[in-house]
Parts: sequence; C-alpha cells; structure tokens
Amino acid sequence: MSDDAKHRLELWAEEMHQGHLGLRYKVRRTLYSEESAFQQIDIVETEGFGRMLFNDGIAMVSERDECVYHEMIAHVPMFVHPGVRRALVIGGGDGGTVRELLRHPSIESVRLVEIDPLVIEACREHLPVTSEALNDERVTVTVADGVEFVAGTDERYDLVIVDSTDPIGPATPLFGPEFYADVKRVLEPGGLVVSQAESPFYEAGRQRSMLEILSAAFGRTAIYNYTNLTYPGGLWSFTLAANGDLCPIGDFDAGRFDAANLECRYYNKAIHRGAFILPEFQRANLDGLLSPFKVEP
Amino acid sequence: MSDDAKHRLELWAEEMHQGHLGLRYKVRRTLYSEESAFQQIDIVETEGFGRMLFNDGIAMVSERDECVYHEMIAHVPMFVHPGVRRALVIGGGDGGTVRELLRHPSIESVRLVEIDPLVIEACREHLPVTSEALNDERVTVTVADGVEFVAGTDERYDLVIVDSTDPIGPATPLFGPEFYADVKRVLEPGGLVVSQAESPFYEAGRQRSMLEILSAAFGRTAIYNYTNLTYPGGLWSFTLAANGDLCPIGDFDAGRFDAANLECRYYNKAIHRGAFILPEFQRANLDGLLSPFKVEP
Repeated sequence: MSDDAKHRLELWAEEMHQGHLGLRYKVRRTLYSEESAFQQIDIVETEGFGRMLFNDGIAMVSERDECVYHEMIAHVPMFVHPGVRRALVIGGGDGGTVRELLRHPSIESVRLVEIDPLVIEACREHLPVTSEALNDERVTVTVADGVEFVAGTDERYDLVIVDSTDPIGPATPLFGPEFYADVKRVLEPGGLVVSQAESPFYEAGRQRSMLEILSAAFGRTAIYNYTNLTYPGGLWSFTLAANGDLCPIGDFDAGRFDAANLECRYYNKAIHRGAFILPEFQRANLDGLLSPFKVEP
Repeated sequence: MSDDAKHRLELWAEEMHQGHLGLRYKVRRTLYSEESAFQQIDIVETEGFGRMLFNDGIAMVSERDECVYHEMIAHVPMFVHPGVRRALVIGGGDGGTVRELLRHPSIESVRLVEIDPLVIEACREHLPVTSEALNDERVTVTVADGVEFVAGTDERYDLVIVDSTDPIGPATPLFGPEFYADVKRVLEPGGLVVSQAESPFYEAGRQRSMLEILSAAFGRTAIYNYTNLTYPGGLWSFTLAANGDLCPIGDFDAGRFDAANLECRYYNKAIHRGAFILPEFQRANLDGLLSPFKVEP
C-alpha cells in the first residue's frame, strides 16, 4: 500500500502570461471543466485562493480576492452617479458585479448580458458567493452577445458595466469603437460606463486605445486602479466615461457612502479618490486622453 | 542533427509562495549562481523581466520593475524630510536604493550595510543598472550585520532605510524591537526610518507586528503602498516612522519635487499622497497603530 500523504499526486493550475510568466495555483480538485461554444471553462478548488474560475486558462475570479474587483467595478460609479436605477452588465456571468450593484437601494433593475451560458451554469453550481445574486428578483439574465444586445435594444440605462475578459476570444469586440457608440446610445443623459481595462504595466497600448475610443465618444473619461492577487502584476484598471459631465472625484457623494454603511473589504472613501491617482508611467502613457477633474483626487 | 529552435531546453525559475502559489519566469541563461554563507544567490536573464536577482529562490530585483521599489523607498522620505544629508541603508546590496538617494543634492554621504558580500559581488558583476551607484564617492559600502552595525555605531543619520529581504533567514532580526531601538538611537532628531514591510494581502500579521514595534518606539508612524510585477500579489508596503513629528503628507515638499525635475517612472506628486491611502482591509488591520496625518492624503 502506498503512503497516501507522501505520494498524493500534486495538481497545479497554471496561467501562462505572454509566454514568459507562469502563475501556478495548487489545486485540491476540479469542480467543473467544460468546453463551451466560446471557451474552455474550469472551476477548481485551490489550496490558497478558495475556488477559482478560469476561462481559457486565465484566472477570472477567486473566492479570496473577488471582492476587490467587484467592489471597485461597482461602487466607484454608484457613488458618483446621483441615483442609478437601471444598470446593464455586459459579461460578468459569475454574478459578482451584480451582487455589489444590488447593495445600493436606488437600483430597480439590473440586466446581465452574458454570451456564454456555460459560464453562468458553472458559477451557479460552484461559485455561489458571486452567483447567488443572479437569483435576485431585480435581475434579468440574458444569454446573448453583448455587442449585438446593445446594438439592438430599446432599453436605456443609467450605468453600463463592461465586465469582460481579456480582449482575446469572445470579448474582443467589447474593446472596439462600434460597441462604445452603441453603449453611448443606450445610456441615459448623465449616465456612466465602466469597463475592465487590463494592466497598466502589461497592456499600456490597450489602455491607450481604450481611452482613445472613449474620449472620442464621451464627454468625460477617467481611469482608476485596483490591486488584487490573481491578475498578473497585481495592478489593474477600470475606465470610467460619462455621457455628460459627472466627475468621478468632484461628483463623488461621500456623504451617501457614509450613510449607506456598506461593509467593504477593499473600497472606502479614501480609496475612491486614491484609485484615480496614477503611477507616472501610466499617467504619461494616457496623457491627453483623460479629462481634467473638477476636484483633484 | 537536432533542430535547435524546436528542441531547445526550456528553463524556468520558479518562486514558490506559501506552498500554494508559484511564480515562474522564463529564463534565457543563468549569469550567477552561488551559495553564500547566508543564502543561495542567483542572477538570471529572463525573457520578460530583464535580469533578475533571486535570494533563496525569492525574486528581489528585476530590471523591468526595480524602478518602482527603489523610487518609492527613497523619494517618499526624501521629499518629506527637509534636507537629508547622511543616510544609512541596511541591506539593499543591489545598490538601487542608494542610486535613488544620490539623485538628491542634499545627500552628502550614504552608508550601505549589507550582510552578504556575495550579493554585492553578484550585483556589481551582473546588475550594473542598480550597482553602479555603489561606485559614487559619497557612498561607503560596509559588509556587516545591520543589527550589529546599528547597535555599535557612533554615527548619526537623517534617514535610515531598511531595505531587507523577507523575515526569513538573515533578515529576521531586522523585523524585531531591539533593532528598532538601535535605529532610533542612530537617528538624528527629526530623522526618518523607512522599512520594507511585505504584502498587506499575505502578511497582515507581520504588518501589524511591525507597526506595533514602530508605534511603541517612534513619535509618528505610517505605511504606504506600491505595486510592482514580481512580488506576489503586486501590492506591497513600506513603513515610515519619524523620530519627531514629520508627517509624510503634511510635511511633503511638493515644491521641492517640482524644482528637482526628477524623471521618475512610478513616483510623482500625486502618487506620494495616494500611496498612503489604504484599502479597507489593510486600514482595519492596522487600526490604532497609524498616526493621524496633519493633512489627509
């Protein structure tokens, strides 16, 4: 008989980044592994990060740090806009972004448009910490291509969140100008759009092209940063654009944050401002593409 | 004959973190590999990060992102203290911290105290981007145990920088209270001490114990963050303590920064303030151990 403790097979999930950086997570067991029409989807239980969702081998969500991403993508625009009633989330089939939006009492409806039904299925089965929000009665889940959805819908939103994967595979058109022309069309006057904007270290060109598209289409553009454990380099960004003149610092409603008494693990009033302060290399890269703030962060 | 392009051996250097996270770097060739009296020292040329120094298998410096660490450890205290003339660097045998200190015209002398002569030798041979600073006539390199050095020296400094490795192996006593009692003794009135303070995500207990030690010994304590590519989780911290009442925000000399015309890749005036804004989980962890600022960051 073998000594189980000594000879158990070690399983590791590895995300390969740009061919020269590997991020490996020790895996206890695989909970879900399917190839959908769009991508390979895996949920594994890890030793150090709880359950993790990988799309095409790239870490999307870990139970340990998903709060960072989801708090920052949702609360920053929610405390800038004076009262988001209707929100649209493109992508984000795990449900974490929807969960954070629903914590705001102004929210009447959230439509989630996810292209891949198997992402939703996998997360409903194995990531309840994020996916349970999808059962809320204010939420409508639509399985559709986000690009086609915004091109065709008659609905209008106060907030659009583009909670996309990297610009490879199914998410690629979500980084293009045609998509943002339609996002602008479905935004109410004064509405906001926040988008997953990759890494300032590794994707400087992509951040520039995103802000070129946004600054051509919208009255106000900004970018803000957050740091988590499971994205390469740690420092990642969201863009924020306004169909109107809302300033993410000057129009930040700190009093509403205090009154809301939200328990957050990463977001707070100071982080709201601090997230818009950029390292010099990122500021220089985006020079001329970011709107001046009404008040400095 | 083999097809060299297809069959070349792939070399990867892997840093294992807490037994469940591996960070792997594709390696072109090994430039230096020696076991010193204190640790294993390797310098490798990587595919994505230039040359990298590893001590005991843990990434210390990469050419690609060393600017972040070295700018943030040096310029933050240098623009808070009104005029650092004499600085002491404990550890930091690569020379990067010394390089950034020397960019300030107020600096008359820097003493570097590195315990391991082989770190200095390896970096002098293979990391000139940081180690060339050690040839400056204002610099004295002392090979000694930093703990013993501060216990015995009669010198006094305006700034002490503890540029240490993780609290395992030779650096462990650099995280203890006896060491900081001696650091306080060698600081001029009004002097500052900045220390490498690990990851707020992974080392919350260590950050708490460091600030307990510092807040017991010093008039003013603070912690600030930076993000780089090659430390696990990306977000890492430095502590800053004052032998007196200098506030890292209220006493920050923004005008001197403007006049200095320093070209930095990460540090700027806004980042100086933003670095002191902490994510909620880190703020809560250190509650009661950080001094109030004279001016909010």
